[in-house]
Amino acid sequence: MYSALIKTMRNITGFLLVLLLAGLGTRMAAAQATASNPNFIIIFTDDQGYGDLGCYGHPTIRTPHIDKMAAEGQKWTNFYAAANVCTPSRAALLTGRLPIRSGMCGDGRRVLFPDSDSGLPATEKTIAEVLKEKGYSTAAIGKWHLGHLPPYLPTSHGFDTYYGIPYSNDMDRDTAVAYKESFLHPETAYFQVPLMRNTEVIERPADQSTITRRYTQEAVKYISKNKKKPFFLYLAHSLPHVPLFASPGFRGKSERGLYGDVIEEIDWSVGQILATLKKEGLDKNTYVIFTSDNGPWAIFNEHGGSAGPLFGAKGTGYEGGVRVPAVFWAPGKIKPAVISEIGSTLDILSTISKLAGAALPGDRVYDGYDLSPLLRGERATPRQEMYYYHGTRIFAARKGDYKLYFYKNNPLGYPEQMEKLEQYQLFNLQHDPSERYDLAGKLPEVIKEIEDMVQQHKASVVPVESRLEKRIVKQ
Amino acid sequence: MYSALIKTMRNITGFLLVLLLAGLGTRMAAAQATASNPNFIIIFTDDQGYGDLGCYGHPTIRTPHIDKMAAEGQKWTNFYAAANVCTPSRAALLTGRLPIRSGMCGDGRRVLFPDSDSGLPATEKTIAEVLKEKGYSTAAIGKWHLGHLPPYLPTSHGFDTYYGIPYSNDMDRDTAVAYKESFLHPETAYFQVPLMRNTEVIERPADQSTITRRYTQEAVKYISKNKKKPFFLYLAHSLPHVPLFASPGFRGKSERGLYGDVIEEIDWSVGQILATLKKEGLDKNTYVIFTSDNGPWAIFNEHGGSAGPLFGAKGTGYEGGVRVPAVFWAPGKIKPAVISEIGSTLDILSTISKLAGAALPGDRVYDGYDLSPLLRGERATPRQEMYYYHGTRIFAARKGDYKLYFYKNNPLGYPEQMEKLEQYQLFNLQHDPSERYDLAGKLPEVIKEIEDMVQQHKASVVPVESRLEKRIVKQ
Repeated sequence: MYSALIKTMRNITGFLLVLLLAGLGTRMAAAQATASNPNFIIIFTDDQGYGDLGCYGHPTIRTPHIDKMAAEGQKWTNFYAAANVCTPSRAALLTGRLPIRSGMCGDGRRVLFPDSDSGLPATEKTIAEVLKEKGYSTAAIGKWHLGHLPPYLPTSHGFDTYYGIPYSNDMDRDTAVAYKESFLHPETAYFQVPLMRNTEVIERPADQSTITRRYTQEAVKYISKNKKKPFFLYLAHSLPHVPLFASPGFRGKSERGLYGDVIEEIDWSVGQILATLKKEGLDKNTYVIFTSDNGPWAIFNEHGGSAGPLFGAKGTGYEGGVRVPAVFWAPGKIKPAVISEIGSTLDILSTISKLAGAALPGDRVYDGYDLSPLLRGERATPRQEMYYYHGTRIFAARKGDYKLYFYKNNPLGYPEQMEKLEQYQLFNLQHDPSERYDLAGKLPEVIKEIEDMVQQHKASVVPVESRLEKRIVKQ
Repeated sequence: MYSALIKTMRNITGFLLVLLLAGLGTRMAAAQATASNPNFIIIFTDDQGYGDLGCYGHPTIRTPHIDKMAAEGQKWTNFYAAANVCTPSRAALLTGRLPIRSGMCGDGRRVLFPDSDSGLPATEKTIAEVLKEKGYSTAAIGKWHLGHLPPYLPTSHGFDTYYGIPYSNDMDRDTAVAYKESFLHPETAYFQVPLMRNTEVIERPADQSTITRRYTQEAVKYISKNKKKPFFLYLAHSLPHVPLFASPGFRGKSERGLYGDVIEEIDWSVGQILATLKKEGLDKNTYVIFTSDNGPWAIFNEHGGSAGPLFGAKGTGYEGGVRVPAVFWAPGKIKPAVISEIGSTLDILSTISKLAGAALPGDRVYDGYDLSPLLRGERATPRQEMYYYHGTRIFAARKGDYKLYFYKNNPLGYPEQMEKLEQYQLFNLQHDPSERYDLAGKLPEVIKEIEDMVQQHKASVVPVESRLEKRIVKQ
């Protein structure tokens, strides 16, 4: 009886000891993660223009959550997507490399389609893969558009889980509905886009009328479940790409009309993410980056966004096509500021790798820079140049304040009217953000400098075949 | 000896009593002023565009003080000057009436010049005159441009004091210097503009290279001297109208170039004003309004500003010509918000009169509305309409979200190319701030409504002769 009691007590003590150690272990692991392994969230919108946020000057779109995020963090005003259309822009963001190096751009097809038989090559290493090596949990939510077949899906590229649509929300369109009508009065049934979980289609057509809300719910759930392990969340909204949809609570609410409803729901979503981080005590150890994949799709009139003061739109290498809103947020880690130096989505992989202490493979060319010293307010941008690719061609190049144009195009982007310029055009973007005053005649030495820079850059590019042309052969 | 002591004590007591009463009196007067008589400061810039502030989306101009003022107060995104050039815009601001009613606009000369023999008529009642009747101290600092001859100067229109230049900073130009050169590489000596104190010329040419700083010093001094009496300060900067000048501490500092230097000095000036109000304990009882007289003068290339996402420029009735930044600030009195409802400089007199408890004369038509309920966050704007006058002609009219164009013009404003439209154009400004998508074919009922509104308005206008044509006859 006595020894039985002793034994029971020993068992209880042992059980308590295990509990205690487990608790300590958890706390130690959490502390270690806090010190050395910050979380990362990239919120990536689709076709949102430079001017489509309150803090970037839109007169009627209300974005209090993103505005607050910008005030508490850094608002970048010369930040570039690496391409002016979807697929190459996303490839660049996730790999830190210009799409010309991976074959993820082309001069025929410029993005992937539902009949595409290719995608991001397995040899490319995404942010998710880099972070997985450091023990991160990784999730992709939203639009992918880097290949919808199994070898190319997020789960084949370093993401533990995936929930979203594998290509653009305007694809698999019901051609029985008139083209314009399907966009100006969109209905979910017009677009047979699949919604996937990991590699399975779980809904088709994806109910787009609640998609932003559902992405957000998935994201909130993911964050709440991943408190004890550092994580990387890639939340790529499929909107405000046309066709536009907003959840019932947002539809008809914005003074900007349906496009404003969509952005205001995304703003709500950002608010939910930040509130969840605070609630879970993760806000002091999480970097949140908000940006867009390219400029607004201007040919859809009021259903397209605004590049604000910038010239041009999606599909062009003018500023409006590639300069995007970009907000970096990490209270206590990022020094609040407005940054008018040059940055790019190409830099995000290098920056995150540095902040996570992760190594990058030495066997390839990277086009990104580590921006972490700027985020801390320590020094100037290492990025002095930007190449404005249009497919495989360099439409324009920027060095410091100056941008030199080699081509011209339809400023709306569609139909494409690419034409080599007989006289190059040169603009000082910091003085003249709307690119109105051509300085080419006045600054031949600047033109020469940029031409030399472009020649050097071109020499670094090993030609690869475009991966956007290959189509599924129907048996 | 005893009685002498008593007498001395009585004297001392009496003296102390006087002191005490004087103190009480001062405190009571101050208390009364605090409760019922707020101070008003209007900061009015010249040719600053809608897009030329950080908080209105400029990528490289830094305006931390105005941005903070906007965050603490109200930032209005559909706020209009009442004319697209200087003289009529200022007449409207100070009188609360469309210039068509006072003769302060015209279709020949559109502003006053150094050879003008006229100005704002004595029959017009300015904000200063309205407030003087309530015992306010009043001061005008900066550019006037409502008549430079004695009967028309600020001191003849209700201002106790005046310090500034009586017309635009590009006038009295030295014609020996090439026109463009004088603006692109400006020097003070090229412009023989007088600087006046009250009715005396105290400097000629006005040294424009330090003029923003000197206006600011005058303003700070005025505020500090007027703690015990309610005051109205009209601080009308003569910049960023070309020729551009910035004080030594600002010149060459902005990434936006000289134009940015000028705006950043004005931003510094705003910071000085607000800091002075705080220092003097007046910040809880002072309304500060920051706005501009019309859009940017686009023909001067990088020396002109930016209308941001808006189409058109100074000299036009397009949005870029008349929609201006507008920030209202009064901590504790104004509810912080972004206001995308319609407001106008025409409303400032009505609003200030209401807030000061001052009566307006009943013998004339006013074109303004009392915006004070909006400032408190109580209700929607009373202003549903805006008439875009070009001289005496109505170029366009807005009702609610819709703007109807009767004319077209050179979007740069100069040279003027006014032409009656054969097909009216209609835009939804809240959906389409850049006025890209003409809805005239789709909404005939809206066109009819606006046409009716314009007819009614026209019936309220009694024709008067333009006061801008009369010139000084040389003896």
